[in-house]
Amino acid sequence: MSGNIQQPKTYAQAGVDVEKADRFVHRLKALAARPEHAKLWKVSSGYAALYPTGPDSAVACTTDGVGTKLLVAMAMKKFDTVGIDLVAMCANDLICVGATPGCFLDYFATGKVEDLQADQIMKGIVEGCDQAGMILAGGETAEMPDLYQGDHFDLAGFAVGTVNRAALIDGENVAVGDVIVGVASSGIHSNGLSLARKVITAEDTFYRDLLTPTKIYCRPAAQLFEQYPGIVKGMAHITGGGWTNIGRINKSVGYDIDKPLPVPPIFDRLLKHVESVSEMYQTFNMGMGLTIVCKSGDAETICQAFNSLGFFAAQIGTVRDNFKGIKVTAGASTPPLEIQFSNKT
Amino acid sequence: MSGNIQQPKTYAQAGVDVEKADRFVHRLKALAARPEHAKLWKVSSGYAALYPTGPDSAVACTTDGVGTKLLVAMAMKKFDTVGIDLVAMCANDLICVGATPGCFLDYFATGKVEDLQADQIMKGIVEGCDQAGMILAGGETAEMPDLYQGDHFDLAGFAVGTVNRAALIDGENVAVGDVIVGVASSGIHSNGLSLARKVITAEDTFYRDLLTPTKIYCRPAAQLFEQYPGIVKGMAHITGGGWTNIGRINKSVGYDIDKPLPVPPIFDRLLKHVESVSEMYQTFNMGMGLTIVCKSGDAETICQAFNSLGFFAAQIGTVRDNFKGIKVTAGASTPPLEIQFSNKT
Repeated sequence: MSGNIQQPKTYAQAGVDVEKADRFVHRLKALAARPEHAKLWKVSSGYAALYPTGPDSAVACTTDGVGTKLLVAMAMKKFDTVGIDLVAMCANDLICVGATPGCFLDYFATGKVEDLQADQIMKGIVEGCDQAGMILAGGETAEMPDLYQGDHFDLAGFAVGTVNRAALIDGENVAVGDVIVGVASSGIHSNGLSLARKVITAEDTFYRDLLTPTKIYCRPAAQLFEQYPGIVKGMAHITGGGWTNIGRINKSVGYDIDKPLPVPPIFDRLLKHVESVSEMYQTFNMGMGLTIVCKSGDAETICQAFNSLGFFAAQIGTVRDNFKGIKVTAGASTPPLEIQFSNKT
Repeated sequence: MSGNIQQPKTYAQAGVDVEKADRFVHRLKALAARPEHAKLWKVSSGYAALYPTGPDSAVACTTDGVGTKLLVAMAMKKFDTVGIDLVAMCANDLICVGATPGCFLDYFATGKVEDLQADQIMKGIVEGCDQAGMILAGGETAEMPDLYQGDHFDLAGFAVGTVNRAALIDGENVAVGDVIVGVASSGIHSNGLSLARKVITAEDTFYRDLLTPTKIYCRPAAQLFEQYPGIVKGMAHITGGGWTNIGRINKSVGYDIDKPLPVPPIFDRLLKHVESVSEMYQTFNMGMGLTIVCKSGDAETICQAFNSLGFFAAQIGTVRDNFKGIKVTAGASTPPLEIQFSNKT
């Protein structure tokens, strides 16, 4: 609780008040509620909205941004990868409801369109769409002098996918004894950067790693949805809130992580300054960008689908009923850790 | 060509280089082109991307922002209407391809979520969704300290609608002798604000009018699509680029506007400083927020659909073949004006 602005020890001290933002979202949901919301297919994870297009088909829609990872790109004057992050943040959300990514639209806002910067940003977005198997179908370039200063800009993305009733992932049939599969991240991805940027400054050898683009998990996921519909019982994209995202699969069980994936060194570097291991796991992905729950007999098929396409997936734990939350009961670089799910939706 | 930054006389002098942005979009389209784009239904107007969900059905997707109208809201500390503009900018685009608005997602980025400001912004978005007949199905609130300073924020919107082949508007059967219907705007809407804000400053009696929310034309449009599928041959939302948007309906004909809608006084005020009438019509909506082309026998039905719901719609001209472009051949507050369509797509 030092309050030192240069070296915050928690995400809240870095200026991001997750609880206040949660309260805002709660008020917003009450304000926006309309009887017509009953039309939408229900998925409690909230990764995407499911708008029906037929009795057994829907489109999944989601939006996200890159967050303050953009400021790292600006500081390094390297703009060709944040577009990959933008697509990743949206596309990885789509697959968590079982949707196959279809098309992407971008919103690019800047004080002045500078050709070199804008072209590099778009190169990344197109690369991200290629990785996700989506087409870039539209977008908006907003030139807003006076709102964005210097070389500042912002990016928002919108992704649409298609999903059939048989492939829908709603987490409802997750059961005790099911297996937890983890898929490795490429590092920090696009979350917790408001804290990480203050701990790892430009002089740090890990600074460049802050810009490593987010892994896009769509190709193997879409392959699984097509070849084995229903094989995935639950899927969580590990984003803001770190491993608490696992609870979005289903909060009525416990997730016992007894063989975590290797934790990339950047997180050890961050841990030297961050207040606690618990804060780390509630802010960062800690080496796991995607979590999947399946029947124990299906874990190998799922791991194989990811590993054959160059990802690293492994069985990391089991679903239990003797607690509700996440327990990390083994792990080379961390002491045992327990996180309870909050009751907030 | 004074170059006086305080009082720019053109949109370009106000810092928005439309031609440069067009060249960027052109490069971007080449970069993003993939064989899979052939899947999308073709509509040349570009108001929305049409992703098929069946042989005769598609979802229409579009994204937009509010532009520097946000800076007027910040200056006036009045945040409850820009959300209406956000929804309007997206929803009015959807109807131009014949889609019925379905759901909306917002991206709200700010340095720090301030409850009062955030709640007012969301109140406007929900009000806009109600007006458009859409549900607010999701969104992202991004707290980005260091990127947005003070009370600065940005908004992006994403709208999805549904369209059947029979209701699709592609402008291809627009023919000589067809009638042009105009629907009145509420004033400046959300375009040309980077210029208007510099001409009409805080001391000006018209300053408050800069914040009047954009009209949302979806209710009468959706009613027409349902009751009279195919009645609308072409529809153009008049946004950035002003009346040149009429060319998005079909560039192979001429639009002879011989009875323009009344021009609201704010545009007369702007004309006192803007370089030319032509610049005005290529930047602002000049009192017409939506333009519709139909068979001459259908104009009354269309006007009636809008007027019965409190809009002001009237027959304002005719489609010709003796020129390509827009001619304003009569009009109380403007001299005769001719704008050629550019060949840019």
